[in-house]
Amino acid sequence: MKRMDEGMPFLLQYENVAWYEDGKVRILDRRVYPREVRFEVCETYQEVVRAIADMVTQSAGPYTAVGMGMALAAYQVRDKAPAEQSAFLRQAAYDLAHARPTTAGRYGKITFRCAAAAGAALEAGRDPAAAVVADTLESLGRRYSTMQLVGDRLADLIPEGGTILTQCYGETIIGTLIRAARRCGKDFRVFCAETRPFLQGARLTASCFAQEGFDTTVLTDNMAAYAMEREGIDLFTSAADAIARDGHIANKTGTFQLAILAKYFGIPYYVTGIPDVDKRSASDIVIEQRDPGPVLTSWGIPNTVPEVKGIYPSFDVTPPHLISGVVTDKGVYVPYLLEQYFDSEVRDFY
Amino acid sequence: MKRMDEGMPFLLQYENVAWYEDGKVRILDRRVYPREVRFEVCETYQEVVRAIADMVTQSAGPYTAVGMGMALAAYQVRDKAPAEQSAFLRQAAYDLAHARPTTAGRYGKITFRCAAAAGAALEAGRDPAAAVVADTLESLGRRYSTMQLVGDRLADLIPEGGTILTQCYGETIIGTLIRAARRCGKDFRVFCAETRPFLQGARLTASCFAQEGFDTTVLTDNMAAYAMEREGIDLFTSAADAIARDGHIANKTGTFQLAILAKYFGIPYYVTGIPDVDKRSASDIVIEQRDPGPVLTSWGIPNTVPEVKGIYPSFDVTPPHLISGVVTDKGVYVPYLLEQYFDSEVRDFY
Repeated sequence: MKRMDEGMPFLLQYENVAWYEDGKVRILDRRVYPREVRFEVCETYQEVVRAIADMVTQSAGPYTAVGMGMALAAYQVRDKAPAEQSAFLRQAAYDLAHARPTTAGRYGKITFRCAAAAGAALEAGRDPAAAVVADTLESLGRRYSTMQLVGDRLADLIPEGGTILTQCYGETIIGTLIRAARRCGKDFRVFCAETRPFLQGARLTASCFAQEGFDTTVLTDNMAAYAMEREGIDLFTSAADAIARDGHIANKTGTFQLAILAKYFGIPYYVTGIPDVDKRSASDIVIEQRDPGPVLTSWGIPNTVPEVKGIYPSFDVTPPHLISGVVTDKGVYVPYLLEQYFDSEVRDFY
Repeated sequence: MKRMDEGMPFLLQYENVAWYEDGKVRILDRRVYPREVRFEVCETYQEVVRAIADMVTQSAGPYTAVGMGMALAAYQVRDKAPAEQSAFLRQAAYDLAHARPTTAGRYGKITFRCAAAAGAALEAGRDPAAAVVADTLESLGRRYSTMQLVGDRLADLIPEGGTILTQCYGETIIGTLIRAARRCGKDFRVFCAETRPFLQGARLTASCFAQEGFDTTVLTDNMAAYAMEREGIDLFTSAADAIARDGHIANKTGTFQLAILAKYFGIPYYVTGIPDVDKRSASDIVIEQRDPGPVLTSWGIPNTVPEVKGIYPSFDVTPPHLISGVVTDKGVYVPYLLEQYFDSEVRDFY
């Protein structure tokens, strides 16, 4: 099977996202990239859970990491009796799925299938860890081919020579958008909101686009209105960590206000991704509240006095009336009519 | 004359803002406060110009620094002939006034009056530097007593036990609001947008309120919509670096988008300050464009790869339709009717 990460930016190379080999999972530490290229090495699946919770990897990274974590779990339990292996893998599947609350449902689709793949390999006398890695790569390939359809559609929506504004880091859509733009020879400028406190926009998204030759500009998160008014932004786009069937989406904090601003300035906002069949409405979206430490610091250096508190909601929820369209593999949907996505066959995505 | 900085937070003590003594001006380096309490020592007025341009001090700090810089200019030229002294002081008044473009008109009101005070002292055989310091302190006292009326009115607008959201650091209004709240025993919570890239909200505003005993919370600039929707913000308020007579105001970048968000959520936005008689409309407001270095770094550490560009508009302009009221010494004005401010006598402010 052809690997879908060929010719992709450094951050999207499978080996750099998360990789299982010889009883270890190696994960690129995105908290320090590009200042430093450092890998976190996990020797137990529990360490993978911790790495995901600590945001060593994020965006689509955990979808790979949970799969590789399952391979590690299979390796950890290799010498035990089959029943014990099976119980351990179920526990690992649950723990890895719940590393972060907002995306637990998505992660779980991968981890429980990996547990089944390991079980089948065991019964057939094959190496369960290898079977899980193969399954994880297959699943990655599936996501990339589906997301390529999304990237193609998004590329169509961007005017030639136009300017897009991004929020946070939607890794798969960035990769597939870059590939689509290359294929049709389309060029555009990219404005990236830096996305405090984790700076995914500045560190990850801007690095990908700039290194692939796009004219890339970072702005602090409070310059969005200024840029929309004076820098000629044609389109705002973001990925989503949850897309509910009623058109509410959850994405990195700040997306909600960029959507409000885009509406104010008459700039279309396109969300990319695959609707979540198991999320009926906004009330099915859990917002992860994180330790406010990063909000009160920059690169670990305190920004204020110790008496000051912080809040750190990892995501916010954008309602459908602020969304121009949800760009999926099957077409661009009116957010209020997202239910129609499920009227025709749905590809296996995770 | 009673000093108006009595009982004020550390940041507002006159000696900590900018102070002339013995041929030197000492300016608190707000770029590193509260992480470090460090003073920049200037031995020429040109160094004061540079310090203001480099944002060693900002907000109302430069209004004091330009006065103290004029005292230093008088000291620098003390041994020259009167005509030369006078020419030198005029040049210093011009240079200090133009240290930053957006507020040049305001600074100039102070510096040219200081030049006149130095000239008068010279003629009367008194020490011109001492005369300029006295004039600067008098002018500071004048601003504080006028701004105390603004602070009193703002305190009236805040519901008891309510929550306000601030942007950047409006030092005089913070001091006078704290004094007004203390006087009438009013308590409220303060949410401070951190105000990247310079982090005035986190470093300066939050420090002042927290150290004076207010329940203070910092949020990253992209969490404003989240906080307005879910944290019970009653009122958004900011100072302004320019208040045009047609109701447009300029303030630190990010104010504009907070005003849009406040309007979206039905939260009143009150601008505090004294309208600028010489600014008829938005077109009289010059937006300073700064070197984008700070946008691409945090505490000097690069956030992205070198290929990425940045923008750094120091201010943005908020139109009157997003402003609920302009809180002045004479009352709270409808922004469209700000011209009425000039119908009655205007206090000498600078």
